[in-house]
Amino acid sequence: MIGIFWFVPLAAIIALCFARYFFITMKKAHEGNATMIAIASSVRRGAMAYLKQQYGVVFLVFLAVGLMLAFLSYVVKIQNKWVPLAFMTAGFCSALAGFLGMRTATAASSRTAYAASKSLDAGLKVAFRSGAVMGLVVVGLALLDYSFWYFVLNMFVDLSKPSAKILAITSTMLTFSIGASLQALFARVGGGIFTKAADVGADLVGKVEAGIPEDDVRNPATIADNVGDNVGDVAGMGADLYESYSGSILAAASLGAVAFRHMGAATQLHAVLAPLLICVLGVFASIAGIFFVKTTEKSSSFDLLCSLSRGMKVSSVIVCVGSILILKMMSIPNFLGIWGSVMVGLGIGIFIGETTEYFTSQAHRPTKRIAECANTGAATVIISGFGNGMISTLLPVLAVTLGMVCSYHLAAYGSDNTTMGLYGIAISAVGMLSTLAITLATDAYGPIADNAGGNAEMSKLGAHVRARTDALDALGNTTAATGKGFAIGSAALTALALMASYVEGVKFALLNAGGKFISVNGVDIALKKATMSNILHAYDVNLLNPNVLIGMLIGSMLTFLFSGLTVNSVGRAAAKMVEEVRRQFREIKGIMSGEEAPDYARCVTIATSAAQREMLLPAVIAIASPIIVGLVFGIPGVMGLLGGALSSGFVLAIFLSNSGGSWDNAKKYIEEGACGGKGSNAHKATVVGDTVGDPFKDTAGPSLNILIKLMTIVSVVTVGLAVSYSLF
Amino acid sequence: MIGIFWFVPLAAIIALCFARYFFITMKKAHEGNATMIAIASSVRRGAMAYLKQQYGVVFLVFLAVGLMLAFLSYVVKIQNKWVPLAFMTAGFCSALAGFLGMRTATAASSRTAYAASKSLDAGLKVAFRSGAVMGLVVVGLALLDYSFWYFVLNMFVDLSKPSAKILAITSTMLTFSIGASLQALFARVGGGIFTKAADVGADLVGKVEAGIPEDDVRNPATIADNVGDNVGDVAGMGADLYESYSGSILAAASLGAVAFRHMGAATQLHAVLAPLLICVLGVFASIAGIFFVKTTEKSSSFDLLCSLSRGMKVSSVIVCVGSILILKMMSIPNFLGIWGSVMVGLGIGIFIGETTEYFTSQAHRPTKRIAECANTGAATVIISGFGNGMISTLLPVLAVTLGMVCSYHLAAYGSDNTTMGLYGIAISAVGMLSTLAITLATDAYGPIADNAGGNAEMSKLGAHVRARTDALDALGNTTAATGKGFAIGSAALTALALMASYVEGVKFALLNAGGKFISVNGVDIALKKATMSNILHAYDVNLLNPNVLIGMLIGSMLTFLFSGLTVNSVGRAAAKMVEEVRRQFREIKGIMSGEEAPDYARCVTIATSAAQREMLLPAVIAIASPIIVGLVFGIPGVMGLLGGALSSGFVLAIFLSNSGGSWDNAKKYIEEGACGGKGSNAHKATVVGDTVGDPFKDTAGPSLNILIKLMTIVSVVTVGLAVSYSLF
Repeated sequence: MIGIFWFVPLAAIIALCFARYFFITMKKAHEGNATMIAIASSVRRGAMAYLKQQYGVVFLVFLAVGLMLAFLSYVVKIQNKWVPLAFMTAGFCSALAGFLGMRTATAASSRTAYAASKSLDAGLKVAFRSGAVMGLVVVGLALLDYSFWYFVLNMFVDLSKPSAKILAITSTMLTFSIGASLQALFARVGGGIFTKAADVGADLVGKVEAGIPEDDVRNPATIADNVGDNVGDVAGMGADLYESYSGSILAAASLGAVAFRHMGAATQLHAVLAPLLICVLGVFASIAGIFFVKTTEKSSSFDLLCSLSRGMKVSSVIVCVGSILILKMMSIPNFLGIWGSVMVGLGIGIFIGETTEYFTSQAHRPTKRIAECANTGAATVIISGFGNGMISTLLPVLAVTLGMVCSYHLAAYGSDNTTMGLYGIAISAVGMLSTLAITLATDAYGPIADNAGGNAEMSKLGAHVRARTDALDALGNTTAATGKGFAIGSAALTALALMASYVEGVKFALLNAGGKFISVNGVDIALKKATMSNILHAYDVNLLNPNVLIGMLIGSMLTFLFSGLTVNSVGRAAAKMVEEVRRQFREIKGIMSGEEAPDYARCVTIATSAAQREMLLPAVIAIASPIIVGLVFGIPGVMGLLGGALSSGFVLAIFLSNSGGSWDNAKKYIEEGACGGKGSNAHKATVVGDTVGDPFKDTAGPSLNILIKLMTIVSVVTVGLAVSYSLF
Repeated sequence: MIGIFWFVPLAAIIALCFARYFFITMKKAHEGNATMIAIASSVRRGAMAYLKQQYGVVFLVFLAVGLMLAFLSYVVKIQNKWVPLAFMTAGFCSALAGFLGMRTATAASSRTAYAASKSLDAGLKVAFRSGAVMGLVVVGLALLDYSFWYFVLNMFVDLSKPSAKILAITSTMLTFSIGASLQALFARVGGGIFTKAADVGADLVGKVEAGIPEDDVRNPATIADNVGDNVGDVAGMGADLYESYSGSILAAASLGAVAFRHMGAATQLHAVLAPLLICVLGVFASIAGIFFVKTTEKSSSFDLLCSLSRGMKVSSVIVCVGSILILKMMSIPNFLGIWGSVMVGLGIGIFIGETTEYFTSQAHRPTKRIAECANTGAATVIISGFGNGMISTLLPVLAVTLGMVCSYHLAAYGSDNTTMGLYGIAISAVGMLSTLAITLATDAYGPIADNAGGNAEMSKLGAHVRARTDALDALGNTTAATGKGFAIGSAALTALALMASYVEGVKFALLNAGGKFISVNGVDIALKKATMSNILHAYDVNLLNPNVLIGMLIGSMLTFLFSGLTVNSVGRAAAKMVEEVRRQFREIKGIMSGEEAPDYARCVTIATSAAQREMLLPAVIAIASPIIVGLVFGIPGVMGLLGGALSSGFVLAIFLSNSGGSWDNAKKYIEEGACGGKGSNAHKATVVGDTVGDPFKDTAGPSLNILIKLMTIVSVVTVGLAVSYSLF
């Protein structure tokens, strides 16, 4: 262990301190009048009730999976002894980040609304810096957790040769991100079901049937709807990116250890630490960027967007300049090439965000064209949104593939070591995610601004306040679109990096296999087929091997099955919500006249318990499929499975997110006055599109990110089963 | 060449003779009254006008692609000199089959209606045997074309060693199916756009806006709609399966030549001829089966279905029993295992058809559930149909993968020759398609029965006739669903077989590479990288090779892009049709009172020219993408591309077909009286679902079958480019 390592926990603690600072500043802000406080506390109570129940279920699942891992580690002995514990700490840290982010977001909404009654800049600052709490807590806890484990393994791994020790530590730590992954699955799927059940319930009965406006206090589902925004876009998005962040760092570290193993222990260690230090740099860059986000009273929506991007640009520039210095100072061989890979990653993230914006914003042709189709009815809206979403997959895929080519060849430049190229791909994912603290701040900002708008509406604040919160909310819608693109792109690169380190690990272990044992993930595993020629055959992940093709077909199918299941879950949960809202309107007589308050809590409970029930089957599929395929078709089957799931899932996720986003904004475009405006038949047609798009863009699409990553990490962790027990 | 080869052209000629016999018998049947004749001749004129224009455009494309192939063969010299000619003959035969099938189908509809006025059995027989014309013509022409080329190559290929000669002939012939593939693309995409533009136009304006019933003579688009049924389900389906049929035979023959090359020339030749002889057996089995299709007057819909399945069962049993005898008599090694593979193929075809029926028929839960969602509006119908379609991908994928495992291991039993296993996969595709003549008869039967119903309606025949044609039509809807499943399943297996023979061919050629040349597809190609270690690196189709992963991502994306483009094409073409129908209702005053006839021909022209214009871009993508990826990323990139396109495209096609089918039948279920029946709000909601599903199930879904196969065969034909000129 060397001195510069300590920068990592140090940066983590600084990030947490700044998070605390932003939190305290926000809490000191004025909370508004009594109505505002009451509404905010309803939302907060709902959010906490959801989290309590969610974490209760997740805790039980973690216990079960933890026991399974303990069984693999201590009884079957195909996994290192650390993973059951590290699994728990990663899951805990991710859950803690979600909890802190949610507490901040739900406390910030009324304060944002109140601040907006003073000035636009004040409102923006409260909302954005509260969002930054989530970003900083995520990167801080992730870096802290892995620093801790790095420290522990460094003490306990007992290998005299430094190079072997680094290899053992990094290949052990690679398995640790399964905790973050599993937590992310539940946060995304559960959150996605909750938020859309509440949204559909509030819209279908409240807006359409009862004819009351959005965010009206008389709508029983309105609090659940506001809770849902936080649940999906704060807790869900946070856990998703927590996982990408930790997965990409661990994958890059493990590939670095393999790629640089012949270049001396110092260089190898530097290659392992480089991704961590780039993230350290990213933490400081993000904090600096956060302070650049401010605005003036006369800002147009374009100016507002610029003030957010100013913060992101500052952070990116700092990472650009700083990372070349870091790589140079650490004397990494071919540091310019590797720096190029980092730049490629940063570039892909921005580019995918931009294409998402182009294909989903009502400012551009594709979404306008969908709105124009509304004149011939709902069917043509659906068809054209569907076509638009499918066509929108072209550019992100070209960007990611081009990025792969560039980062691979830049990092492998002048060497015939292919692992070096894979290290380049992994470190480009790290580059993309290095400024996560500020990227996530813009994501978490969205629901805070949205809730602030809801709070202002329900508390009947003045028109100038509503205008300001509307401006802040509109900005949130734009950042939500780019954020989704970013989440998908980072998930694809992270899954690629994890896949690469998975097979490189197995290949490397095979090359060094001693007799009947190979060493993977920090543990010696008995080989099923002992002769070397058999081994090479069993690990032939060639496309001609039918097991690989079978895996690909199954992987591709699973992404569709998983999406179908989550979409249906939303349908069922929404139906329950619709029933409940109708029941309240029917049975509680004074609701419409405003004399009696609806039972908000009951709607929250319904959405919560539906989310809990529905998230289990998809979770079982994600966890069980790599294990079963591994046991039947071995490593080649698993590789095919991951390749198929990645290639289909990435494209399917973009399609689902972008068609959903474009339907949403086609409706907004008409509400802004186009094609007959609000209340016209065209508007009704786009409402159908928006409702169809809701589970696409907020449940199935984002959940696919996790499916891809979770399947990969489960494969990493259970590789020993496939090695020792596979049927074919 | 040996004596038993002559069975192949003989069977082809017998198939054509029976086709002629059924055609003449049908033509002799009574055509009905003057109105019936007039309507039938309108449809026939429309269909022929479409075919004329379609074949005109396709002829130009064939000239262009033929010139490109000639350039590759005679100038760049990376392709054999036969392929430009064989490309033309295969395209011609497939087009001729489409023409004959369409002529028969359009002549049969009024005769079916008239026969149905006599008895149900008479109606069934006229319709079914007319459908059989298409089936028999397709298999007859395909077998004849390839017999001819086998004969020619046998004369001209000048190699003294028999084993080498068979290898050269089969690897040359593998390239010949590109003609059938390209023709299929245009038939499917063009036909799919035509039929849905006409259908949507007829429905949206005629049924919804003007409120006149389906197939009403006053609807200007009704003739185009009837033409469209033939264009999509006769010509399109026929060309699709023509391609699968020839592709699977040629792939099995080429893999057989490689797998059995060390077992003596006689055994090798038998392995090559076995797939052909199984198809010969299938021809006779199908003809026998056709005569078993008959019914009685009192038949329920279930009895009707049984009478069709009786014919298919008879054929299948004959193939089961006969093929084991053939394989035994030809003394193929491990003949029992290979027979098992044939059986697996037959089984998969039936199973996928059954699951399609389950997920799309209103007799079963999934579609009923979608209909029940109609009570809460169009959005919930769309969402649940979407979920249903996605979940329905599970069973077909499991069936195909299980089938692959079984056919691979059965054929490779007791041998460590992996090519033997791939031969097993290819011959299972042959098994599935061996009874194509009768399978296709049931597909082509559908539009004939549908048109007969339309004819009876428009000619105002009596209620008992309508009841009979309705029964025949309902049967057609069921067979359409199973037929679609069969087409997708056979496309997947054929593409797999083509892919396998592609890489086996390259691998085999590399093993036998002499110095700087390798011999692929019957021609010597200069190697770009001359040393053997470089060669092995360049052909490493391992999933760790980033070029493979890049190819997979691009392949997966292309299936979505292609679907998006075709779906949008339907949208645009339908909008034109809607405009035209509205214009006619507005400008031709006497239409609604029945005093003036609408301008049917104009609607046909609009659908035709829209189809021509819109089919070009998807075609360019399908042809260009494997060439470009091959030039940039080499063989590994192409293999990844094909793997990604196959795994995504197969799943996507099932999803599109099944969700479309279930929406269609959910509407029918409500029209039969469920959930409020015709005219209710629930019915309106399912009409939206049906309209959305139309381009899914009849344009994008079926076109994906061709995309997968065409991309594979283009890769086969242009392999020399990737070998000699690839960038990475």
